[in-house]
Amino acid sequence: MKSIDRILAVGKKVDPLIYRFLPADADKTFQPVLRHQISSGGKRVRAALTVLSCQATGGKTRDALIPAAIVELTHNYSLILDDVIDRGDVRRGLPTVRAQYSDAMAILAAMFYREVLDRLIEASRNPVQVRKVAVSAIKALIDGERLDILMEQSGRTGAYIEKHRFTEVRIDDYLHMIGKKTAALIKAACELGCIASNCPPKMRGSMKSYGWKIGLAFQVIDDYLDIFGEETGKVQGKDIIEHKLGNAVIMYALEAMGEDEQRAFLSLLRKEALSQEDLGEGMRLIQQTDARERTFNMGQRLVSEGIEAVRGLADSWAKKDLTSLAEFIGERLY
Amino acid sequence: MKSIDRILAVGKKVDPLIYRFLPADADKTFQPVLRHQISSGGKRVRAALTVLSCQATGGKTRDALIPAAIVELTHNYSLILDDVIDRGDVRRGLPTVRAQYSDAMAILAAMFYREVLDRLIEASRNPVQVRKVAVSAIKALIDGERLDILMEQSGRTGAYIEKHRFTEVRIDDYLHMIGKKTAALIKAACELGCIASNCPPKMRGSMKSYGWKIGLAFQVIDDYLDIFGEETGKVQGKDIIEHKLGNAVIMYALEAMGEDEQRAFLSLLRKEALSQEDLGEGMRLIQQTDARERTFNMGQRLVSEGIEAVRGLADSWAKKDLTSLAEFIGERLY
Repeated sequence: MKSIDRILAVGKKVDPLIYRFLPADADKTFQPVLRHQISSGGKRVRAALTVLSCQATGGKTRDALIPAAIVELTHNYSLILDDVIDRGDVRRGLPTVRAQYSDAMAILAAMFYREVLDRLIEASRNPVQVRKVAVSAIKALIDGERLDILMEQSGRTGAYIEKHRFTEVRIDDYLHMIGKKTAALIKAACELGCIASNCPPKMRGSMKSYGWKIGLAFQVIDDYLDIFGEETGKVQGKDIIEHKLGNAVIMYALEAMGEDEQRAFLSLLRKEALSQEDLGEGMRLIQQTDARERTFNMGQRLVSEGIEAVRGLADSWAKKDLTSLAEFIGERLY
Repeated sequence: MKSIDRILAVGKKVDPLIYRFLPADADKTFQPVLRHQISSGGKRVRAALTVLSCQATGGKTRDALIPAAIVELTHNYSLILDDVIDRGDVRRGLPTVRAQYSDAMAILAAMFYREVLDRLIEASRNPVQVRKVAVSAIKALIDGERLDILMEQSGRTGAYIEKHRFTEVRIDDYLHMIGKKTAALIKAACELGCIASNCPPKMRGSMKSYGWKIGLAFQVIDDYLDIFGEETGKVQGKDIIEHKLGNAVIMYALEAMGEDEQRAFLSLLRKEALSQEDLGEGMRLIQQTDARERTFNMGQRLVSEGIEAVRGLADSWAKKDLTSLAEFIGERLY
């Protein structure tokens, strides 16, 4: 077994726990709807991070399982609703909950997930602390999704969106958005591992810093793949098609372009529907800049900073695994 | 001031509390979205019930305010998402959150409401008890909405809905559905008042029974108005247009019809869109039966049973108000 598979297997340990909590109080005919999102896969990276963070700070695996399930369920809660919001039909190669069961059932399933989360939090050993971290992470997810939407240049209507839509995205806006959309929950995953191990504050600070950095890295690399990564099964230029100004590659590309190219590129992003030709033109405009390299470097730098953050921890298998996991995110092609 | 206005004014006391909790951690530009649902009105019947239940069982108003806010926010949380699910554009004569701010922002606002609920629960005096009651009520709401959808005879597609759609609705199915959709939260409103007053179990039992009965009455009378009540600003025959088999009038009408009329009426409910003629024909078929009278009587009977449930409480203003509120629901045209 490849080392990364062994590490991620740790995260998969939450599945039985989630399947045990999920159907409580649910009607039998609703249970397949509830199971769909969880059973359709996912690498359980966040759950693995909670368990590893607990182990690396002196705790036991079993103490981290409920917190890890909380993180994973939170992630899937937001995915179900993101797919409703974005009208997403396919995720991980399978129909999304909304595609399989309708928007209505997807919304109801997500609401149910939120209540199951509450039960998991109550079942954890430090419900007050766990709750605070989980609720903050969910609030961050909500605002991250909101900002991500407002950075889209087309495809949605309504006075609110038109009024608050970003017309340019600078590095600070971008980091603010991805911090909320992606890094906050990954940081929370690490923090919940520390709550489970009840480690000293300094260690917790290191783990949170690790989570934050690799969380940002995770999204930057996702952005990279959402432009260049046809080999991962993603459509090349996907985030161009989706009108996203909130993508690191696009942000860097626009920064490097002359005024004419900027105007041309933005008008592509603002088109309601892009032709293959438009997409080709968009990719060409990006490839004339150093955006690919800068995004790649940004991702690698964040990974290094994440690894650096845990250097001070006592040596252990778990610490080694945290480093490997960060490197895996850096090299990630999944 | 009419007595009912004085009683309902008690419920409005939660508004400042909700407005104080709502914006915490929310971006300034998101706050109007969050405020919209609350500021667009509502009678605060549920909040009034929590306060009155607390008072009637020996507690103080101030102890009931946070629980009352929890009930009211839960109600509004579900309304925002119901409007997304049902593509509702108008509520209380004003644009819904989704109509005003887009489906995406409505979903995000609802998610945010759920986290504010969590903070309100934590701020209550008995968070563990309050949480249990609130979470059960939300789970009931979710399943009630699911059943309500499955009782619709047209207007939604998807294998899940088609497979589980009700082809007939008997009284037990109907009571099961409205118990979850409407009565569970109204019962919870009364129960939370009792948790706030910390009254003896017997009193709590009476209050829960009161809440359950008037909750059922509330929905039965709503159903009545959704068929006959053009004077309340509702469209006459609204639930026929919305394909609902889960309406008391329709249920009773079908029960009383001969086979031919049943078939004709069901084929109307299953039409994708009804003409004015279809609607007229549907109303005529209903009016040939005793459904109007039976539904009216059912509502009145439930109101009486609710009033009966609190007869044993010590006499107080609050007890009198609970009776008036039940009678108001019985006569309700709002």
